[in-house]
Amino acid sequence: MFESLYQSFANTADPSQSAARLAALREELARHGLSGFLVPRADRHQNENVPPSEERLAWLTGFTGSAGLAVVLQDRAVLFVDGRYTLQVKEQVDLSRVEPVPIAQTSPEKWLEKNLGSGMKLGFDPWLHTPGQIEKFEKAAAAAGAELVALAENPIDAIWSDRPPAPQGAVARHPARLAGESAKKKLARVGKALGKADALLVSDPHAVAWAFNIRGKDVAYTPLPLAFALIPKEGKARLYIDPAKLGPALRAYLDERAEIAAPSRLEADLAALGKDGKRVLFDAASAPVKLTRLLKAAGGEPQIGQDPIALMKARKNQAELEGARRAHLRDGIAMLRFLHWFSIEAPKGKLTEIDAAQALETFRRQSRKLRDLSFPTISAAGPNSAIPHYRVTVATNRKIKKGIFLIDSGGQYEDGTTDITRTLAIGTPSQEMRDRFTRVLKGHIAIARALFPKGTSGAQIDALARLSLWQAGLDFDHGTGHGVGSYLSVHEGPQRIAKLGGAALESGMILSNEPGYYKAAEFGIRIENLVAVAPRKIKGAERDMLGFETLTLAPIDLSLVEPKLLDAEEIAWLNAYHARVRKALAPHVEPALRKWLARATKPIGK
Amino acid sequence: MFESLYQSFANTADPSQSAARLAALREELARHGLSGFLVPRADRHQNENVPPSEERLAWLTGFTGSAGLAVVLQDRAVLFVDGRYTLQVKEQVDLSRVEPVPIAQTSPEKWLEKNLGSGMKLGFDPWLHTPGQIEKFEKAAAAAGAELVALAENPIDAIWSDRPPAPQGAVARHPARLAGESAKKKLARVGKALGKADALLVSDPHAVAWAFNIRGKDVAYTPLPLAFALIPKEGKARLYIDPAKLGPALRAYLDERAEIAAPSRLEADLAALGKDGKRVLFDAASAPVKLTRLLKAAGGEPQIGQDPIALMKARKNQAELEGARRAHLRDGIAMLRFLHWFSIEAPKGKLTEIDAAQALETFRRQSRKLRDLSFPTISAAGPNSAIPHYRVTVATNRKIKKGIFLIDSGGQYEDGTTDITRTLAIGTPSQEMRDRFTRVLKGHIAIARALFPKGTSGAQIDALARLSLWQAGLDFDHGTGHGVGSYLSVHEGPQRIAKLGGAALESGMILSNEPGYYKAAEFGIRIENLVAVAPRKIKGAERDMLGFETLTLAPIDLSLVEPKLLDAEEIAWLNAYHARVRKALAPHVEPALRKWLARATKPIGK
Repeated sequence: MFESLYQSFANTADPSQSAARLAALREELARHGLSGFLVPRADRHQNENVPPSEERLAWLTGFTGSAGLAVVLQDRAVLFVDGRYTLQVKEQVDLSRVEPVPIAQTSPEKWLEKNLGSGMKLGFDPWLHTPGQIEKFEKAAAAAGAELVALAENPIDAIWSDRPPAPQGAVARHPARLAGESAKKKLARVGKALGKADALLVSDPHAVAWAFNIRGKDVAYTPLPLAFALIPKEGKARLYIDPAKLGPALRAYLDERAEIAAPSRLEADLAALGKDGKRVLFDAASAPVKLTRLLKAAGGEPQIGQDPIALMKARKNQAELEGARRAHLRDGIAMLRFLHWFSIEAPKGKLTEIDAAQALETFRRQSRKLRDLSFPTISAAGPNSAIPHYRVTVATNRKIKKGIFLIDSGGQYEDGTTDITRTLAIGTPSQEMRDRFTRVLKGHIAIARALFPKGTSGAQIDALARLSLWQAGLDFDHGTGHGVGSYLSVHEGPQRIAKLGGAALESGMILSNEPGYYKAAEFGIRIENLVAVAPRKIKGAERDMLGFETLTLAPIDLSLVEPKLLDAEEIAWLNAYHARVRKALAPHVEPALRKWLARATKPIGK
Repeated sequence: MFESLYQSFANTADPSQSAARLAALREELARHGLSGFLVPRADRHQNENVPPSEERLAWLTGFTGSAGLAVVLQDRAVLFVDGRYTLQVKEQVDLSRVEPVPIAQTSPEKWLEKNLGSGMKLGFDPWLHTPGQIEKFEKAAAAAGAELVALAENPIDAIWSDRPPAPQGAVARHPARLAGESAKKKLARVGKALGKADALLVSDPHAVAWAFNIRGKDVAYTPLPLAFALIPKEGKARLYIDPAKLGPALRAYLDERAEIAAPSRLEADLAALGKDGKRVLFDAASAPVKLTRLLKAAGGEPQIGQDPIALMKARKNQAELEGARRAHLRDGIAMLRFLHWFSIEAPKGKLTEIDAAQALETFRRQSRKLRDLSFPTISAAGPNSAIPHYRVTVATNRKIKKGIFLIDSGGQYEDGTTDITRTLAIGTPSQEMRDRFTRVLKGHIAIARALFPKGTSGAQIDALARLSLWQAGLDFDHGTGHGVGSYLSVHEGPQRIAKLGGAALESGMILSNEPGYYKAAEFGIRIENLVAVAPRKIKGAERDMLGFETLTLAPIDLSLVEPKLLDAEEIAWLNAYHARVRKALAPHVEPALRKWLARATKPIGK
């Protein structure tokens, strides 16, 4: 009945190969006179989702997390992971051969400084690291008397005999009615934003997709075309992309807006700019150090900073906001179908986490507009819900029993990207669960209702989501919100609501609002809606004020709400939100669902 | 009857000299082949309060603000000032000869890049700038084809014929019962905190005062001894201080703990460390670039970072906290006498801002424990209260009439430093004033009552002070709180409650809690108490929690409070605070004051 097309639940970790692969790599390194090699979980664009051909770290170690860095020396191999993956890594790698290191305890640079020996040569693939990363590693190596060596070929590729080919996903236009601004205008805007730079090297494929109004199919969960671009201050842009990805109509479209070149041309073009002494702006977060060094060596001036496209892309225009509203209505209908189905099936006690994820994807596909999931669904029962970044596989798949079930999921639609978390009770929740859920809800409402002056950063309002938990001596260890793209990545910067979210929140930015609470090995709670920053008119205001428009439309489980903990304004927000959800979704579903929806969104009192 | 010993109300600005002085400086520069010169408002320690001998900027331009930087070229002179001084500077300088530039609009480095010409040589005194400042200026000059030249002698000193001599304030011991930790233990603690550095060059005199448990009299408002120190990882520290400042007993005390050397010895000692290839830690915020370069040129390794003393000093121990409580009780009694006096005198309509400042200082002196004011009292009537950093002089002195009066002041006592702001109504305040005052009070209470987990920064809670203003489309343009020293500077880092206050709040830190609201040219409001960070026990807490203990003890003007805007918890806080103030102060004053106090602190209802 239900199936998943966009997500695999296979346990892909296979540490059994890692002894042989490490040995082969070490032989390869020795052949080139190297003492070790850096293996980041990265492609040439520092993408969050990378194609199978770039999964070198998983191939070598079995570790499949979305971030990590292995340092392979001749006598030992360590793997740095962040807080999300400290448990997972231990289950995925051969611990007799790979030592996991929590990055919060020891940074790679600290480790290198301590563990590299004098005269050692540590190789790295300069396509897979940013200049900032390598600068830190070089300092650390130098402090240990060792040196970093940029390699012309990645030694893993030399031994990875069945390495998948690079993806050749077809590129499509992103229609002007959805983009809201032509590629021509965008490219001109970018050119004008370059300040003293002669050109911008666009290394983030999300930025390429935005600037040219195109979308691709090269990686999972995000409609990216893997490509670089060079946008000059004035004149025609160049797009470096495999021509095999372009059909004739798209080719014609792009030819009018840019010169199309094979990716292999990029190095020669940058070298030519360097020879002319040009200043090129590179994106510090995604540019390969290969390219900044190449420009410099040729005589040019690399300027490493923020790609101005990041901020342009973050501020959604009216067409994109209208698309987001349509996408969220569609997604809300799927969520309603899922919640209704779940309310009937879950109490029977036979569902598993995979069943729930498959059902939700199926309901989303029923819209016939789903292009992809926006990330692997987190479907987490009981104690698994206490792991904020849990990912279900056949190995971890739990039965959904009485207690808490948490589902965090999203869809990619051509008009918008969604991301929603709902926490559901099966049976009667404990008083503790209701208390925690209501505190998280208070935080969620505080963000949803926030009013703040122009110029306020996400860091300044992050605490609003935590105050109610803090009152009880509780907290959660992730940010309150991340930026979200427009039919692009579900994780987008620079906008954030987090302790270190320094970027000002600007009108049109889309973010998640997702406070949580996690009681290890028992249960977890998260309530997530997407919101868009919007201007707010206030009588007598002396400042330009902003607030949030909540985009997500789906009921919040009232059986987990303790009304006594809510004040009158919070109750009013919850009832108004539910009234809006009901009004929006009811016309699109059959009477039985409408009846269930009315019950699920009925106003509560104190 | 009342007088001020510690504050002058003279209008010290004298722009009439500035034409001649600028001409003399330009001649002096030309003689040395220089195109221009940087004149910062700085001494060798980047002090906030500097001795008269270091007031070069005021001498040259007439500008007396506590921060500023002039760039004097042959054909023009510009003066960069921050938002506090954009109005003041226009009244103080000869605008036909000095162009004020708001630093928020154009940074000095941007200006230099644009306005320096190719081949120009811009001189600077390397004792008066930090390495970070000079690095920025050098980049800017280089971009313009110009260069910065470190001068061996300051050219202003060559032409400033009646320059006051350097101060020789007597140094005194800060008793162990107040410091709570011996200098010996502190110095050992600092040595252990040096990491890879062989020694620490202490350039911040507040840090010197803290580490050696001494206080001085070299500058106004802060009991600083102008001095440098060199604290090695192991072994005896060196204190570079004019021996004329040390009496025999203090000399004996210091001799046991350090080698005492004349300040002129510092350069030779650093050069010797450099010759030995030593790594010396310098404080990025206060170290003169003169010294970091000297060490480097001699072969040493300057490490520019945060002086570890800053954080040690910020975390007050029990003895310091007990001292702070005593100082605040004493200060509260003076404030009570002032408020009572003001309530009788102000309605008569004859008082001026200077009268009020003199009265308050006199009441503080009646304790016989006042050593100094902690800063020039801000005594601001009517529209002057809308200027957050207003400073009254004979030229600006206003009559105190019906409406708002704001007084922001503090004392230096041997056991603690105070800082308090009260906003008072004369006559019946307008509804707008009551509304704004109550919103500011809600922000003040939100900070006072805040509960937050260990690790939380001041930036994370800053918004709590603003939420009620934001609801009405209002805000204020300064931080919510600054750190405060223990019988040291009233402005101390790294602790802050502000948009950019990244340091974690730690138990024992003292900060101000001072939200405000300013309606330009009409009235201003600020409510300021000092608070100390303290651990908080909460039943069932999963995190180590912190909160604030309010130290300041003085009534808040209830005639400005609109109870309808306060919720039950805010009313409870205000009533409990007033009960505490009453209980603490009443035993120390005569019956008439006690009666007035009871009325001023009576509980309010909704």
